[in-house]
Amino acid sequence: MYTTSYKLNVRSLNKRTSLDLIRFTPGGIARAEIARRLGLTRSAVTVIVKDLLENGLVREAENITLSGGGRPVALEIDPSRGYFAGVDIGVSHLGLLVTDFSSRVILDQELAFNLSVKPDQSLEFVHQSLVGILERSGLGFEDLHAVGIGVPGPVLEEAGAVSSPPIMPGWDLFPIRDTLEERWRLMVTLNNDAELGALGEWAFGAGRGCSHLVYIKVGSGVGAGILIDGVIYGGTLGLAGEIGHIPVREDGPGCACGNYGCLEALAGGKAIARQAREAVMKGRRTHLSRIVPPEAITAKDVVAAARLGDILAQEIVKEAGMYLGIVIANLVNLLNPSMVVVGGGVAQMGDLLLQPIRQAVQERSLKSAAKCTRITAAVLERRSTSLGAVVQAQNAVLDQIMEIA
Amino acid sequence: MYTTSYKLNVRSLNKRTSLDLIRFTPGGIARAEIARRLGLTRSAVTVIVKDLLENGLVREAENITLSGGGRPVALEIDPSRGYFAGVDIGVSHLGLLVTDFSSRVILDQELAFNLSVKPDQSLEFVHQSLVGILERSGLGFEDLHAVGIGVPGPVLEEAGAVSSPPIMPGWDLFPIRDTLEERWRLMVTLNNDAELGALGEWAFGAGRGCSHLVYIKVGSGVGAGILIDGVIYGGTLGLAGEIGHIPVREDGPGCACGNYGCLEALAGGKAIARQAREAVMKGRRTHLSRIVPPEAITAKDVVAAARLGDILAQEIVKEAGMYLGIVIANLVNLLNPSMVVVGGGVAQMGDLLLQPIRQAVQERSLKSAAKCTRITAAVLERRSTSLGAVVQAQNAVLDQIMEIA
Repeated sequence: MYTTSYKLNVRSLNKRTSLDLIRFTPGGIARAEIARRLGLTRSAVTVIVKDLLENGLVREAENITLSGGGRPVALEIDPSRGYFAGVDIGVSHLGLLVTDFSSRVILDQELAFNLSVKPDQSLEFVHQSLVGILERSGLGFEDLHAVGIGVPGPVLEEAGAVSSPPIMPGWDLFPIRDTLEERWRLMVTLNNDAELGALGEWAFGAGRGCSHLVYIKVGSGVGAGILIDGVIYGGTLGLAGEIGHIPVREDGPGCACGNYGCLEALAGGKAIARQAREAVMKGRRTHLSRIVPPEAITAKDVVAAARLGDILAQEIVKEAGMYLGIVIANLVNLLNPSMVVVGGGVAQMGDLLLQPIRQAVQERSLKSAAKCTRITAAVLERRSTSLGAVVQAQNAVLDQIMEIA
Repeated sequence: MYTTSYKLNVRSLNKRTSLDLIRFTPGGIARAEIARRLGLTRSAVTVIVKDLLENGLVREAENITLSGGGRPVALEIDPSRGYFAGVDIGVSHLGLLVTDFSSRVILDQELAFNLSVKPDQSLEFVHQSLVGILERSGLGFEDLHAVGIGVPGPVLEEAGAVSSPPIMPGWDLFPIRDTLEERWRLMVTLNNDAELGALGEWAFGAGRGCSHLVYIKVGSGVGAGILIDGVIYGGTLGLAGEIGHIPVREDGPGCACGNYGCLEALAGGKAIARQAREAVMKGRRTHLSRIVPPEAITAKDVVAAARLGDILAQEIVKEAGMYLGIVIANLVNLLNPSMVVVGGGVAQMGDLLLQPIRQAVQERSLKSAAKCTRITAAVLERRSTSLGAVVQAQNAVLDQIMEIA
């Protein structure tokens, strides 16, 4: 008895770690390299890989076996094992994508969306949109292993719900995960959009393999995802990363959370749009004044105008970067990350937003910590969160498969 | 070959986890409970415990076996296996203690100390003090397994040195660990004082068994230690937790790090002493004016006066609490900890310091996160760091023993 349970225990652990190496190494990885990286014997890895091949989870990469002879065979995830969907529920956009088992995107889509205070209504729209993208991919729900979902609020892990989300009024404790699981008869994983953005960038983006990664999502709101060796740091209840509600200016504008001068109220997309509208109404010279009525100006418009050289828009983006920098500098002192990845809609500005952030970290963080922290833009852009959602959904499915196998 | 390496691998993992349960469960723990907690079979635990008993690492608790019959036998660490020393190097104090193998303190001592800019000089004093306490314990260096050391600066894990420590000028990259290892011919572990304080409080203090613990050390400087399931979160280079250098008041006083208005420059012991001196020199009415010359006033004096009801001293401590609260509130939003333990010399003030911290968290953190965070004083007081240093030293020794065994 004892030997068997022991063996099962460690075998599944090593099997899972080997599988993750195969999942997250671009171009696949050879058996010998798995053995080296995990400190296992080659024969141990041979047995593990045999299992994974038999289970249909991995396959030998074709392009490499062709070369034949003594060259090592790269292993890769078998894309044909099934499909996943990733959904990024934003305040003003809905991102959806469908991937094969190797996380390759088959189809993706971004829709304008208005996060309603009535969860049922919003989730109905999510449902219809997912039905639509599945149809266009030639797939049905029965082809999916699981759906991963990101939302712009603090997620209570156990409940599968958001807790008093400042930017999602009406959603407090609504059972998002259970509602969708019941409707789709599928496994659904739910997490905060910034935490999933961190996971997406770690798995396939700017932070590939990075040990201590912080992802800052600058969308309508502002949030952070903390990742330690590819594992989301959620804190006690899963609420970690709520940097949007760190006050940075005592005399700042009111925030949706009830406080004043929060980072989100100064640097989030909603704040950026508001500042542009106010400036236009004051008669500031800017290309944004062409948008009529001024109430229609969105953060997206400001970002686009800044890219085209509009001075006012650039000023607004720079100021947002400065406030983000103040909080990120503190975060560098506190967490000593190796990388800070800035993503979300507003972050597609690139250096105009990153420059003031880098400057604040230079000025305000301890030199030794600042020196080892790279600050960079997300490379998956709008897909960071939805791809991270797929990674988390796949994690959950693999946990299940491995336990049974 | 393959089976053996597999077995060794998982066996040592489960053995180590079982041993840690025995180490950190007050009053010891029975075999059946270990099996339950780790999801192992009873027979597996029987084999593990047999190993641990044979290795002389644990023993069966006497008081419980006496009751005989069907009652389970509690296992505890065998105190006679050898000794450890823990050293807390402060800016103005040196804390030392010697423990048996079960971390029970045999003798402890606190000395006035002046952290010199010449590391050799300070380390000579540390050496002499350790020789002294060992002699009085009837022990010699040959009885020690290892010495754990805490320092008030950011520690580079690999180098065993501090990196540009604002409060330890002259110590940048000085090889503290290697110097002492060579001198004592013993294993030495080195870490930041706040990180070790977190470990001490988690193992034996206010944060026993707490999953997400943050320890704030308010001594001459201010630092934080972040602990996830008993493991120190050090960040990329081990520099995490440097909250002392988070700016909280743009127009604040200059800080040792070169910036202005850092938390440490507003709420650390040095800042508290300076504020008291300035108030006395301005003629403010306070018992502290009895200390002549005013330059001699220390943070310890301010804390003592505040305890005795001195209004000025209480004001100074409260203001420090308010600034600490601002940073701790941000930290609650970012890390969603289950507990924040406030320790260090200044924190021995209790509620006078804790009250403004609790208030700031109530006002500034997200409600859901604030609700699940307990804010409390360290219970090991001055010993948090030195006991944490012993825990870390023992971790390292056990890693070594387990690998050989």
